[in-house]
Amino acid sequence: MPKTVGIILVGNEILSGKIVDANAAYLCRELRELGVDVRRISVIPDEVTIIAEEVRAFSRAFDIVFTSGGVGPTHDDVTIEGVARAMDVPVVRHPTLVGLLERYYTGAPTEAALRMAEVPEGAELVAGSLRFPTVLMRNVYVLPGVPEIFRQKFDALRERFRDRPFYLKCVFVRIGEGTLAAHLNDLLADFPELLLGSYPELSNPEYRVKVTLESRDDAYLGSALERLLARLPPDAIVTVT
Amino acid sequence: MPKTVGIILVGNEILSGKIVDANAAYLCRELRELGVDVRRISVIPDEVTIIAEEVRAFSRAFDIVFTSGGVGPTHDDVTIEGVARAMDVPVVRHPTLVGLLERYYTGAPTEAALRMAEVPEGAELVAGSLRFPTVLMRNVYVLPGVPEIFRQKFDALRERFRDRPFYLKCVFVRIGEGTLAAHLNDLLADFPELLLGSYPELSNPEYRVKVTLESRDDAYLGSALERLLARLPPDAIVTVT
Repeated sequence: MPKTVGIILVGNEILSGKIVDANAAYLCRELRELGVDVRRISVIPDEVTIIAEEVRAFSRAFDIVFTSGGVGPTHDDVTIEGVARAMDVPVVRHPTLVGLLERYYTGAPTEAALRMAEVPEGAELVAGSLRFPTVLMRNVYVLPGVPEIFRQKFDALRERFRDRPFYLKCVFVRIGEGTLAAHLNDLLADFPELLLGSYPELSNPEYRVKVTLESRDDAYLGSALERLLARLPPDAIVTVT
Repeated sequence: MPKTVGIILVGNEILSGKIVDANAAYLCRELRELGVDVRRISVIPDEVTIIAEEVRAFSRAFDIVFTSGGVGPTHDDVTIEGVARAMDVPVVRHPTLVGLLERYYTGAPTEAALRMAEVPEGAELVAGSLRFPTVLMRNVYVLPGVPEIFRQKFDALRERFRDRPFYLKCVFVRIGEGTLAAHLNDLLADFPELLLGSYPELSNPEYRVKVTLESRDDAYLGSALERLLARLPPDAIVTVT
């Protein structure tokens, strides 16, 4: 069974429109490329009880969970506590992380900085090639909100998520969805396992709708594409990629 | 009491990394500007049962809900059915929408196109200045996924959401979060109602952290800002905006 993923963004700054998410967008693209199915993204405020509730629900519902944001030394960094509450464990200081912080800061780290050594009890540290490892609590990877570090940390882990790949074909058509719909319904009747999307484009003069066909089975995808192309009026097709 | 908002994006294309959301990002920025508090964003697949469950939960939890996507004539457009199930009502054809579609299409609309006349029973149509109104079912506004139309429709409605404004001040500092944290904690002890954010920036040579102070009370915000500036070491402050 291919793995399912849920992503939780802890982000007042996203909800209040101050910044636009980059991390879930990055993760969705990378995970798809790895053959992993992202089932849900949730953007929630920096509040411990909400984080705990969402992490608990996601951890049960999906094989793998990523959180982004709320990790650091300031008052609004409460993700670790949220994950700990979700798992009914206390927050503890991890000696390995304390050691890393002591080497990073010249002199002893402040009490605030030492919050970055905190983990839910029982958490693992993963991805040893980076200076600061990622906290993994059961199936929940706790990643930071700063995009540069988020990517570094995910990239250091990415191969552990690789699964059976998706194959994708795109058909661009110059007919509208109103007439296209019947063709797509017929196609799905014959290829019920096909992942089929239909995306109208208003501002592109070249085509009106982008149709996406996807499957983990390349031969099945090929047959479905052939069937669609045979069924569409020839002058409706702009290009296939 | 200021109004709370939840946003549901119905979007396989977002979860599968094919497109990056623009609509929730737009809505968060606009609503903040209007003084409205977005409390949660959820990105879910184009699946009726999941949409129904999420709409039901959001409709209860928040004053106003926006959905984006899954509206149109093709097989993957199941948001209307999801909203109807969430409210335990059937889907019906709205005569006003049928009339609009008949005028839009030359000749009678296809059966598929007529799906765009479907609404949950009991829904209102709002924003008469646009050719196609928006479907409002109780507190749930059903908006399309195509960004150009999404914005048109929201912009036609935006004034009905206006609330008491937020005031925002940003302080850019050249000290790290490890030393900044204690100052922010002290500030919150004196100004517990302050909305205070701390955002480290790795790649900006000008400053290390952006601190955001926000309140609906301009005088309270002014006092909090004054306190923070008095407390920070003077050479820590890069600029205030």
